[in-house]
Parts: sequence; C-alpha cells; structure tokens
Amino acid sequence: MILVLNGPNLSRLGSREPEIYGTWNHERLTASVQRWARELAVTAEVRQSDDETELVRMLHAAVDERRDVIINPAAFTHYSYALRDAAAQVTDAGLRLIEVHLSNPAARESFRHTSVIAGVATGTIAGFGVDSYRLALLALGGNQG
Amino acid sequence: MILVLNGPNLSRLGSREPEIYGTWNHERLTASVQRWARELAVTAEVRQSDDETELVRMLHAAVDERRDVIINPAAFTHYSYALRDAAAQVTDAGLRLIEVHLSNPAARESFRHTSVIAGVATGTIAGFGVDSYRLALLALGGNQG
Amino acid sequence: MILVLNGPNLSRLGSREPEIYGTWNHERLTASVQRWARELAVTAEVRQSDDETELVRMLHAAVDERRDVIINPAAFTHYSYALRDAAAQVTDAGLRLIEVHLSNPAARESFRHTSVIAGVATGTIAGFGVDSYRLALLALGGNQG
Amino acid sequence: MILVLNGPNLSRLGSREPEIYGTWNHERLTASVQRWARELAVTAEVRQSDDETELVRMLHAAVDERRDVIINPAAFTHYSYALRDAAAQVTDAGLRLIEVHLSNPAARESFRHTSVIAGVATGTIAGFGVDSYRLALLALGGNQG
Amino acid sequence: MILVLNGPNLSRLGSREPEIYGTWNHERLTASVQRWARELAVTAEVRQSDDETELVRMLHAAVDERRDVIINPAAFTHYSYALRDAAAQVTDAGLRLIEVHLSNPAARESFRHTSVIAGVATGTIAGFGVDSYRLALLALGGNQG
Amino acid sequence: MILVLNGPNLSRLGSREPEIYGTWNHERLTASVQRWARELAVTAEVRQSDDETELVRMLHAAVDERRDVIINPAAFTHYSYALRDAAAQVTDAGLRLIEVHLSNPAARESFRHTSVIAGVATGTIAGFGVDSYRLALLALGGNQG
Amino acid sequence: MILVLNGPNLSRLGSREPEIYGTWNHERLTASVQRWARELAVTAEVRQSDDETELVRMLHAAVDERRDVIINPAAFTHYSYALRDAAAQVTDAGLRLIEVHLSNPAARESFRHTSVIAGVATGTIAGFGVDSYRLALLALGGNQG
Amino acid sequence: MILVLNGPNLSRLGSREPEIYGTWNHERLTASVQRWARELAVTAEVRQSDDETELVRMLHAAVDERRDVIINPAAFTHYSYALRDAAAQVTDAGLRLIEVHLSNPAARESFRHTSVIAGVATGTIAGFGVDSYRLALLALGGNQG
Amino acid sequence: MILVLNGPNLSRLGSREPEIYGTWNHERLTASVQRWARELAVTAEVRQSDDETELVRMLHAAVDERRDVIINPAAFTHYSYALRDAAAQVTDAGLRLIEVHLSNPAARESFRHTSVIAGVATGTIAGFGVDSYRLALLALGGNQG
Amino acid sequence: MILVLNGPNLSRLGSREPEIYGTWNHERLTASVQRWARELAVTAEVRQSDDETELVRMLHAAVDERRDVIINPAAFTHYSYALRDAAAQVTDAGLRLIEVHLSNPAARESFRHTSVIAGVATGTIAGFGVDSYRLALLALGGNQG
Amino acid sequence: MILVLNGPNLSRLGSREPEIYGTWNHERLTASVQRWARELAVTAEVRQSDDETELVRMLHAAVDERRDVIINPAAFTHYSYALRDAAAQVTDAGLRLIEVHLSNPAARESFRHTSVIAGVATGTIAGFGVDSYRLALLALGGNQG
Amino acid sequence: MILVLNGPNLSRLGSREPEIYGTWNHERLTASVQRWARELAVTAEVRQSDDETELVRMLHAAVDERRDVIINPAAFTHYSYALRDAAAQVTDAGLRLIEVHLSNPAARESFRHTSVIAGVATGTIAGFGVDSYRLALLALGGNQG
Repeated sequence: MILVLNGPNLSRLGSREPEIYGTWNHERLTASVQRWARELAVTAEVRQSDDETELVRMLHAAVDERRDVIINPAAFTHYSYALRDAAAQVTDAGLRLIEVHLSNPAARESFRHTSVIAGVATGTIAGFGVDSYRLALLALGGNQG
Repeated sequence: MILVLNGPNLSRLGSREPEIYGTWNHERLTASVQRWARELAVTAEVRQSDDETELVRMLHAAVDERRDVIINPAAFTHYSYALRDAAAQVTDAGLRLIEVHLSNPAARESFRHTSVIAGVATGTIAGFGVDSYRLALLALGGNQG
Repeated sequence: MILVLNGPNLSRLGSREPEIYGTWNHERLTASVQRWARELAVTAEVRQSDDETELVRMLHAAVDERRDVIINPAAFTHYSYALRDAAAQVTDAGLRLIEVHLSNPAARESFRHTSVIAGVATGTIAGFGVDSYRLALLALGGNQG
Repeated sequence: MILVLNGPNLSRLGSREPEIYGTWNHERLTASVQRWARELAVTAEVRQSDDETELVRMLHAAVDERRDVIINPAAFTHYSYALRDAAAQVTDAGLRLIEVHLSNPAARESFRHTSVIAGVATGTIAGFGVDSYRLALLALGGNQG
Repeated sequence: MILVLNGPNLSRLGSREPEIYGTWNHERLTASVQRWARELAVTAEVRQSDDETELVRMLHAAVDERRDVIINPAAFTHYSYALRDAAAQVTDAGLRLIEVHLSNPAARESFRHTSVIAGVATGTIAGFGVDSYRLALLALGGNQG
Repeated sequence: MILVLNGPNLSRLGSREPEIYGTWNHERLTASVQRWARELAVTAEVRQSDDETELVRMLHAAVDERRDVIINPAAFTHYSYALRDAAAQVTDAGLRLIEVHLSNPAARESFRHTSVIAGVATGTIAGFGVDSYRLALLALGGNQG
Repeated sequence: MILVLNGPNLSRLGSREPEIYGTWNHERLTASVQRWARELAVTAEVRQSDDETELVRMLHAAVDERRDVIINPAAFTHYSYALRDAAAQVTDAGLRLIEVHLSNPAARESFRHTSVIAGVATGTIAGFGVDSYRLALLALGGNQG
Repeated sequence: MILVLNGPNLSRLGSREPEIYGTWNHERLTASVQRWARELAVTAEVRQSDDETELVRMLHAAVDERRDVIINPAAFTHYSYALRDAAAQVTDAGLRLIEVHLSNPAARESFRHTSVIAGVATGTIAGFGVDSYRLALLALGGNQG
Repeated sequence: MILVLNGPNLSRLGSREPEIYGTWNHERLTASVQRWARELAVTAEVRQSDDETELVRMLHAAVDERRDVIINPAAFTHYSYALRDAAAQVTDAGLRLIEVHLSNPAARESFRHTSVIAGVATGTIAGFGVDSYRLALLALGGNQG
Repeated sequence: MILVLNGPNLSRLGSREPEIYGTWNHERLTASVQRWARELAVTAEVRQSDDETELVRMLHAAVDERRDVIINPAAFTHYSYALRDAAAQVTDAGLRLIEVHLSNPAARESFRHTSVIAGVATGTIAGFGVDSYRLALLALGGNQG
Repeated sequence: MILVLNGPNLSRLGSREPEIYGTWNHERLTASVQRWARELAVTAEVRQSDDETELVRMLHAAVDERRDVIINPAAFTHYSYALRDAAAQVTDAGLRLIEVHLSNPAARESFRHTSVIAGVATGTIAGFGVDSYRLALLALGGNQG
Repeated sequence: MILVLNGPNLSRLGSREPEIYGTWNHERLTASVQRWARELAVTAEVRQSDDETELVRMLHAAVDERRDVIINPAAFTHYSYALRDAAAQVTDAGLRLIEVHLSNPAARESFRHTSVIAGVATGTIAGFGVDSYRLALLALGGNQG
C-alpha cells in the first residue's frame, strides 16, 4: 500500500491561491488519488498534516510497514532537514519516495528553488497540478519495457 | 504529435555511466517511447542532438507545428540560456514543455542542482530512468478526473 | 475580532532576557492587549503557542472567520516558510496581518535581520516592547483622516 | 516637540506610483500629522528634504534640542551611512528615533529589503500608508499600562 | 537531575544508517546513559522527541527545575532558531547545556557543518558515537583538579 | 601513549584573556592532563608549539608510533591545511585524533566558526575549559557498555 | 525640450583621466549637444551637477514639464537609489529617460559593472565618448521606419 | 561594410513575446537596417544565426575583412565566453564592435543583468527596440564635431 | 598649503560617542591641526562638511590649486563613489591624498571594513584619534633619510 | 593513436593576442605536435573546432576507438558542461584525457580561474605555450621509472 | 624600547618589485628606523623574520617586556590568525601595536584588501614607503596637545 | 641547476593515502627526479620541507642563484600568501617556477580547487603522479621546434 503524504497548508487546497494551486479541495484530491490507485490495482492512503513531527513519524511508519511514499512536502520542502532525515530512511531501506509538487517551484519565488528533500528522493514530479499525484502513482506502478 | 528531444551525450546511453543512466541504449529508449505513445493513442517523434542550435531550432519548429514537447536537456540544463529562450516560446504559445531527467540531479554534483530551463517549463519529471519519458507522455495525455 | 498570536518562547516573557524583552510576563501582556482592544471598542483574542503547526492552523481559522491578525512569530520569523504560506492566505483573503516584534531585530544577531514573513504581511511594527501590540491594534482600528 | 523628517522623493507624494504610495500629497500628509499630534497633545514639525546633508543636520539639531524623531528615510534607507551615523546620535543621546515607511519594503525589490538605519533606530513601523506616521506619533506619546 | 534530550529521528537509532549512527537502538542508549549517570552518582532522565515544540517545552522545564541539559538536536541543529532561543534560556539561567552528536557533522554533507545551537551552548561533543553522551555526563559531573 | 598537542599562543595560558581561556597556565594544564591520564591508567605526553611545522611533524611521529592524539590547534584551526593533511594521516591510519578547544568557538568571532581540521578528526570537544582535555582522555580510554 | 543631465565630476571633463573620458571639456560638450539638438530640430538644455539632490529635483521638474531626459549619472550610477527613485518617476509618467556613459563601464573596475539606474531607464548607451549623447538625442528624435 | 549579427532566437522576432521584442519580424528588421545603412552611405550585411560556432566564425571573418560589427548576442550574452573571445579579436584588431539589445536587460530577469561580451565591446546600446540598430549604425558612421 | 577635509558628522566631535571619537570638539581639532602645521612650517586649511557635493568640489579645487589633501571621509568612506572619483583626480594629478580615521574601522561594525576611497589614496592612517591628522601632516612634510 | 583537440578560436592562433598566445599559427602547431608524436613513436591526430557539438562527438569517437585525448578546451573550459560530460566518458572508459592551456589561466581574468573540465580530466598542463602539447604527449607516452 | 617587526619576504627589500616596495634594502630601513627613533629619544629594535612562529614569539616577548610594537606583517596580514591572536595579547595588555605597510594594499590584488590583524591593532599606517615606519614611531612617541 | 621543492607532508609519500598519492616514498621520488634530470643533462636538487619559512627561504636562494624552480606546494597551495610572494620573486626575476601536483586537485575537496600560487607561476602540471615532476623537468629543458 502506497502512502501519500501532503504537507502544511495543503488542507487549504481549493481556497488558497487557486490560480497557482487549482480549484480542487483536499477531499477531491484524496478521492481522485484513491480512484487512480484502484485503476492501477494498488491501494493508496492519503494523509495530510500541517505538522512536521507527524510527517516524520508517518515516514518512520512507512519504513516499518515497507510502503512506498509519495510526498508533497509543501513549505517544508525548503527547510525541514528533519523531514529530509526521515525521507532518507525510506530510500535507504530500498523503498521509493517520490517528491511531488502541484505547481512548478522553479517558476515562483527564489526561496522555492531549493529543495532539501530532493537529494534523498527517488525522483521528483512537479508542475502538473493534481495530475502530479497520478503520475507519481504511475511511476510506482510502472514497469519499463 | 509530441516532440521528444534528447540533448548532448544521450546518444551514448547504455555505455555511459550505466549505474547512473541505466543500460538501455538510445535506440531502445526511442522504441519504447514510441510504443508508450501508441498505447496512449498519440504519436511521438524522438530526436537526439548534441547540438544546442539544432535543439533550439527543433523547439522553434514545435511552436510552428503546435506540438507539445518533452525535453531532456542533459548538460544544457545547467547553462544554455539559448535553449531556455527557445523553450519559453513553447509555453508562451500555450503548448506544454516537460523537462525530464533519467537520474535525480539533486543527488549528484552541485552544478547539476540548477536548471535554467525549469523556470519556463510546464513541469519537471526526474529520477525515474527511462520511465521519466513514459510519465511525461502520460502527463501530456492524461485527463484529471 | 482580532486574533493576536505569539510564537515560540513568548510564554517565557518576563523571565527570558528581560533586558531585551522587558519584565512583563505573558499574562500581563494578554491583559493589556485585551484592555487596549476594549478601549478601541474591538475584541482581541490572545493566543501563545510554541508550535508551528498550531500557529499555522490558527491562521487558517482566522481566514475562515475573517479576522485580522497580529502575529509575533518570534524565532519562526527567520525560517518558517510554513507559517509564511499560512500568513499569505490571510492577506490574500483581503484581511490584514501585522508582524510585531518586542525588540528591534535589526539591532541584534544577523540571523534576526531576515524575516520570511514580512514579504506577505500588511505591515511590520518592531522595537516598542509590549507597546508594539498596542500600536498594531491601533493600526487595525485606525482611520486616516 | 517631535521632528518628523521625510526623505528624498517624498515631496512627490500623490503623483508618484499612487498604487504604492497612496494618493495623498505631502501637504495633506503634513496637515494630518500635525492634527494627529495635536490630538495627542504634542507638537510635530514636519520637514521634507531630498538632501542627505540637510537631513543629517536636522538630526544634529534634534539632538541639540532634545527632540524625538520620526523619519522616513525613503531611498536613503538603503545606503546612507551618513544618515545612519546621524541617527545613531539621536538614540545614543537617550532620545527616540522611529523609522517609518508608507509601503512594506519587504514586499518590493530586493534592494529595499536592507535598511542601514534600522540597526540604530528605536523601532520601525512600515506598511500602513500615511497611518505609519500616526502610529509612530502614538508610539512616542504612548504609555504602557 | 540531568535532562538528556534526543531530537528527531533518533528514535530510529539502530535501524537508520548504522554505518553512521551505530547499531544501538534508543532503548539501549537510554539504559547506558542512565547507568553511566548512576556511576557518576547523578540521575539522568532521557527523553526523545521528533517534535520541535516538545523539545522547546522540555528546555523551558529544565530552566524552571534548574536542571543541566545534554541535547542531541539532530536535524534541528541546522535550522531551529526556536530551539536556539529555548537553549539560550538554559545557559542564560546559569545552567549548562551541552550539544552532543553521535557522528562528526563536519565530515558529512555541507548543510551539517552549521549549528544554530552551538553559539548558545556551554560546549559541544561530537563524533564519539553513544560515548558522546557519557562524555557529556562526565563534563557535567567533572571537577578540574 | 597518548600525544596531547597544544597549538600557537597556548603557552600564554593564564595571562591571555583569562575571561575566555581561564586562569591556569600551561604548566598546570600539563600536570593535570598527566594526572588525569594516570587515573585512567594511560600515559599522556603534553607538547605545546607555536610552530605549524613542529605540530605537523609531531603528528607524523604519532602515526609512526601509533599513538592516539588530542590536539588543540588554536588559531591553526581556521586555516592550516598543512595541519589538516597531517591530521588526516592519523585517522587514515586507524588511530584516533580528537580536536579540543578550551572555549566555545561558535560563541566567538565569525572566523572561529570554521575548522579546517574537524572534517578529518574522529571527534570534537569544545567549551569545557581545561576539562575539554580530561573528556578527550576519557573518550580515548572509554569503553561503551 | 530635452533635459540633458550630467552627474558628479563631469564638470572636470577634459582634465580628468583624458585617456578614459576624452579631451573635451564640459563647455565643448554642451555646445555640441546643443548643436546636435538643433540639427534634429529639438532643443536641449544641458545641466551639470555634482549634487545628488539637485539631480533628483531636476528629474522632478522634468516630470512636471513633461520633458524627456538624457542622464549620465557618473558615480551615482552605482549607489544612488534616490536618483533611481526619481528616474523611475520619469518613465512611470510615460516619458523617456536614457542612461548614457562616455566610457564602457563593463571594461573598468568591477564596482562600475552595476547600475542601480538602468532597471528603470528606457535604455542605455555607453562607450561612445561624447558621441553617446548624440546617439541619445537621435534615439529621442528618431522614428523607426 | 558593416556586419550586423543577430544571435539565437532572433529569427523568431515578431512572434516571440511581442510585448518585449516588438512586432517586427527579422525580414523587416533586415530591410530597415539596410535602408538606414544606405541613408548613412554605408553598406550593412545582416546575418542571423542560432549557432554559437557560426557567430564565432563570422566574427573571425570580420577581423580578416576588417569590418566593424554590430552584434545582438541574445541569450549568448550571458554565458558564451567563446563569443567573447571572438569579439575581443575584433576590438583588438582596432575595429569597432557594438553590443545591441532590443529590450533593456537590466529591467528583466537577474540572469540577463550580466553580459560576458560587454567587457570587450566598444560600446553598448540597449532598450530602443529595432531603433537600437539604427543608433549603432549612426555610432559607426558618426563624426563628433 | 595643505587641505584638511572632514566629512559628515565630524562637526559633532566631542559630543558623539566620545568613547570612540574622543572628547575634543571640531574647533579644538582645527586649532591643533593648524598649530601642528605651523610647527612643520606648512599651512593647513581645515574644512568640515556634511555635504558630499561640497567635499567633491573642495577636492576639485585642491587639484586646481595643486594642494595635497588629508581627508577623513567619515561615513562616506563606505559608499561615496562620487568622492572616490574626485579623490582619484587628486592622486592622478601627482598630488598626495591621505585617508585618515580617528578610530580603527577594522575594529568596528563590518560595514566599516570597506573603504571605497582607499584604492585611490596615497596612503591611510587610522586609529590614532586626533593624532591621525598630525601623522598625516608629518607624512606630507616628511623626508625620508 | 592520440587525439589532440583544440577548441574555439584556436584556429586564430598567431594573429590573436600574440603576447598571450604566441606567434605560431595552428598549422605550425599541428606540424610540431605531429613531429613530437613521431619522436615518441606514437601518432597524433590534431583537430580544431569552434563547435561544441563537434568536440563532443570527437570525444565520443575517442571512447569508441579507445584513444587517449589531449584537449585545449579554450573558452569552453569555463562553461561547457556538455564537453565535461563527454570528457568524463573518456576517463570513465579507462582512457586518459589531459587538459592543456597555452597560457596560464590563473594569471588572467577571474572567469578563467574556473575549469568545468578539470574535475574529470586525468591531469592538467598549463602555461607553457605550444610546449604544453609536447608535455602532454610525453605524459601519455611516459613511463615512470 | 619599541619593537619593530618585519614579516616574510621583507628581507628581500630593494630587490623585490622596487616599483612597489622601493629601492631601500632591509639594512638601510633598519638604520633609518633606528636613527628616527633616536631623534625621538626612544630606542627601537628592528627584527625581520620569514617565520610565523618567530613573529608570534617576539610578540609574546613584547608583552612580557611591556614594549610597544610596530609590525609589518607582510603576507601574513591576510591569513595568519596565529599572529592575530599574538597581536591581540599586545593590545589586551594595554600596549600599542601599529600595523604598517610600505605600499597601499587597497590599491593592489583583492586578496590584499583583507587584514586579519587590523581588528586587534591600535591603528594602521599604509602607503608611505619606508616613511610608514617613521610615522608609526611618531605615533608611539607623540603627545596630542 | 634546477631546484625541486616539496612542501608539507610530502615526506610521508608512500604511506599517506596511496590510492591518491601513489606508493613511492620520497627517497624513490628524489632518485627518479635526479635520474630524469641527468637524462636531460641538467642537475636537480630535491628538497622537502614541512616548513613554510624554509620553503620561502629556498625560493629566495633560487632567485639569488638564478635557478629555475619546480615546486609542489602541497597544502600551502591553498593559503600561503607568504609562499606566493616568494614565488613571485622567482618569476619577476625572469626565472621559471612550475607548480606541480601529484594528484588532480580539481577532482578532490573544494578547498583544493584554489591555488594562491598559480597566479604567479610560469605554469602548472597536475595529476600525473610522480610523472608530474618528469614533465616539469622536460618543460624546463624543452625547446619548441
């Protein structure tokens, strides 16, 4: 089962800067992610937290339960070395961790150009709106030939 | 029809640092991209060039023919403002341009942490090996709901 | 009703570095802020939290309840992009958010010269001790002519 | 008596970038500041100068006449160490000097994020339009309890 | 009684990168610290938390209960100014606060070369594995002659 | 036998900035280190030199004689890559080299925040006055269970 | 009528570093500019000032009298944000302001590589000696086809 | 005969970001440049290339044929040291090389604030749209008195 | 005749930060400089100005009258390129210009560590209080053998 | 057979800045390199190209034909990551690639102090004029004892 | 008795870059310094050493013998923190230490613009050739009234 | 006679990091250098010193005896401006000084990417193991045609 983690302020989806983040709220995102997962014959648990600690612990649990992770670290992307250290445990354990972003951080404020998570992630998918999650699910489910 | 562009040294795929870039050569990559495209009922033309100018001109042609673009700018990612200016024309024209990377640049040398292309791209997909292209095709073909 | 938020370590007011932060404790600050608010015929709710997440959620609530905000982000001023993203929602919603500081950060250690919040705040008031809050209340209640 | 100093280009208030600086001209600002001062039972002299030297000398006079100062250093904020050295004399003499700004410099061009004055000021008030001056007057007149 | 605080991800000791952090888990670390404390005729309470807020509050409590502190801030070392402000209260109160690290941060990634805590600590002990804690206990218990 | 090396200006201990370095002179430090060593049933040779070259050669000798090293590089900490290269030989040879400081460099001038030695040391102990040496001896003599 | 402004030290033309600035004095420059203007059937007023304030006020007057401006800010180019704010009013008012330099600043000391004026100018002409002014007059008088 | 060189993406003139680069296409620019040249009784050859190498070789030819050069290096302005080395040969040979830009790079993205060409150019003309070329022709044809 | 120039805020000597600048006022400094000059059989004119322009013009006059210059640029030291350009004319003309400071800027705030004047001065004398001027007079009057 | 590659502008040898690059033209360089090769009983093919792509492809060919490479990357030294990626393939394949320079880049403009190639080269030889090539040939042919 | 210390390479005076350092050799400098000292009725011992350690020890001796120091640290100016720590002991002991330079470092290579000694010196005299020493002697011997 | 100087830690050759520096010890290096010199009909004196001062003095002697120099400055490469100033005297005297390195510093830690010596050297040879010395001898002995 895939763990899909959404970081701080993503609970506000749909009301926050819709020209950047789109008009879907978090419930609709959750439902779609789960439907996309079912279409790929996997299960996905979607969790949102504004809490760095909670996200760190969910990553610990992912390691213990051997689950791949899709994470949108939101603002934590740019400074949470605690989250980085937790994310590193996922990939060190041979699991996959995909960093996703709704918008394209490279096209926004300069502080968003740096990710402290990316260096320990399996890969990154950014800029496709909610479709970034669908692509991440496909990445986890995909075979290559 | 989607234009898939591969930048400098990608002709060497399969022989160059296989622990980073995988063991597929460029022919096999091309064949897979085309098969994946067919499965999505789109067509994809795959082009490789070591030449900045040639890549710039292919992007010009994409604008004129109104084709979406998947581009792996390889080393040009880090300094080719000429390519950036050409890529910007694609997205300015309302078309989509997706930057892809086989490996995860954030996990490599520090000069690879900067992309001069990303700021004008629709989105970025990095770190999934040849599957990065499949995901990019899915991103172009995908609907959201 | 105005929401007055105090960030980490401000519960320690009165005992922590009184030469910088003054001798009032947080209770006395709270009482004064509420009295000042009454004098301006507004109500003010004063909340203190050492928790980034809790502060983020209080800002979410402020948006939903359409309340102006006075916030002393304390140490979070210098690195919490999560708080910045939450604060941006307040001003994006047409509400006002005022950043206050008891001391003058520009006269202290260099890491305190940078605020990641100020760029999304309505305005800043710093250096007036507890009076910074009174001025912020006046700013929210003031008319200009 | 409080000295209110306005730096370069503030004579152009009302005609210069009204979306940033508002529609009041300097005369109206002066009249309001003086009325606000009267309401607080203090007197305020408002002076504008485009001249660094003149502002430096006015600060010297403020020290000699033992007057508190409200200063909007405008563009000098970002480079005039001569003004800084003069401002330091005010606060070194036990008087108060408040730096005010009409707009929020942290939300504008990056060169406006640095103040060479703030480190020697009593405090800073920025972002409240002409109301920044009213708040500064209140800060000078305010008691705390 | 000495307070021994362990920061984020240290609960994962033993399973996380054993080549860097060793093979002991947190329980064994706790037992050894307590035994070492007994040998020095002091008592030591060992607490681990992935939560910045909780660590801040434990430091507040240490001030109130007048306890010396040994802290391994883990990833918070590099960005938590909230923790720094709380740590400063410990040493400002005349108590001792020792920063410990299992590994040698100077021999790892460059972001680990900066500690925002060290400037307000009594001292630092790094690089001795779990023995770093034993040395810190000895530092707190030691006489000099 | 453990080699304890003290760098430039440490011969001046006791007379130089006693508020930072304490009131012990180098003879007293030597005597204490040797007594502490005896208590741990090891022998320690204490050497002081203001000479970069002499320190480099002592490190060479330590490698040849297979002795662990405790080194207070003093001002050389911040620029002597020659010392770094010599120190690296100690740890490359499977011996231990501990960097000690009397004061806490992180709480002093910014040039003291950088150590060119730390990256090749086994570990670092700083801020405990002469007790830093005692702790280093304990680190070398300690077992962990 | 076009306003031609020359900044500090340009009164010294002809005697100051003739290998860089040429052998014409300011009077000859003035006469030529006026003759060039007449040839273009426009009038040009040439003013020189070593005074930042005076230049700022001349720019204010240019706005009020709706005159295009040619300005050689000389040393003020590199630090006078007061001049920048005044220059911005010219272009904000829909008038043209051309920055000219006698020499090529990019070929001189590195501090001359930065212009704080250029970002608000209509355009820049540099490196053509006194002919830079003639070209600027042509730019203001020129039609395009 | 004057050589007028246009760099990468300038073939797209008229369709690319017309709000920045104007509505003329490259053919119309060429025709106008040639007409302007005729009016000045000189001849001008206009060449466009997206190819760094081709531009380098055209500069070599200019040296051999002793032709002055007007060059709009476009994106190469910011990184092509190969072009710089070729441009330096033009001015080293006693010929003139003028760098022109349609738009004002100082008013655009920060990477456009740096020119690696300007330091070896005779002069720079930027910000006048296609008129920048006319002014450059005048600069080459102009006498000064 | 030697020209002795004192920059902004030096009129305040004696009252401004006497622990840094000493207790002499500007009149006493002037009298002493003139007496020291007489003792050296030279004449010295001492001028103080808070005005950058006035200082620039005095340097122009010094060139025309072929007078050596002693200048304490005060705060202008750190940013006035206009003053630098004027000072350069003095030394370019074969005259001597000595930069003096009462205090030692290298021992104060970091912005005072940079002098934009020093690069074009004959020499610098700093840190000797009013005696810095006496030494500068001696430097101008001294022979070397 | 050894491949000797010369980068952009080296075709201009002899005419370009002879005080830096010497008076030999490329033909004479080629002849000498070939003669030196013969003296060492190896063969050397000398190629010059102003084209980044062509150089990249020649490096690809060198890998395929298993030839050692001597390369003077000229201006590409400082920015061509495409060339770096191609050069890395040479040394990754167990072949040798020597970076040569005619002049000593460390004694020239600061942008020439950085080589993006050196990190993947076997070694570097710079500053010996055309003799740099002879030394590189000797390096490839040399045995050590 | 005043101690005059000359650092590395100053033994080469007269032969080394005479256009910068003058044509006097060290013997002549020594003789002149001693004569100048006699004229001031003080004694001066002149020592030269290329050895950082020796200079450090001479500074130690100066403290013990309570002698003022004139030091030309030559190249050590820019990196020897060991010398800085020794110099600091001189001024901490209430003695005077004057940093002198023959040439004006601010007018030379950028690495010479930084002095690690100046921050702990009483004052600095630079740019007067051998006369810098005479002025330093006068500074030590001078009274101020 | 050529002087071959080896800097700090090179006496440890053969035992120190043989994967980087090779397995030859300094004696074998010396013997080979002397043999290579004999083969070139020159004589070479090989000296090793861990002492900056001794190396400086050997360079002084080389100037006096008019000997060319081959120097491996080892760690001094990165910070010894004293050595730089001495090396500059060699090349200023019209002699040659070649900087050699066994390994390729550009492929190692970032502090090794900077050489303070290279800017005053005739040339640099790096990365060829002990063969770097043979090539340097050949460079000194070589003719070019």
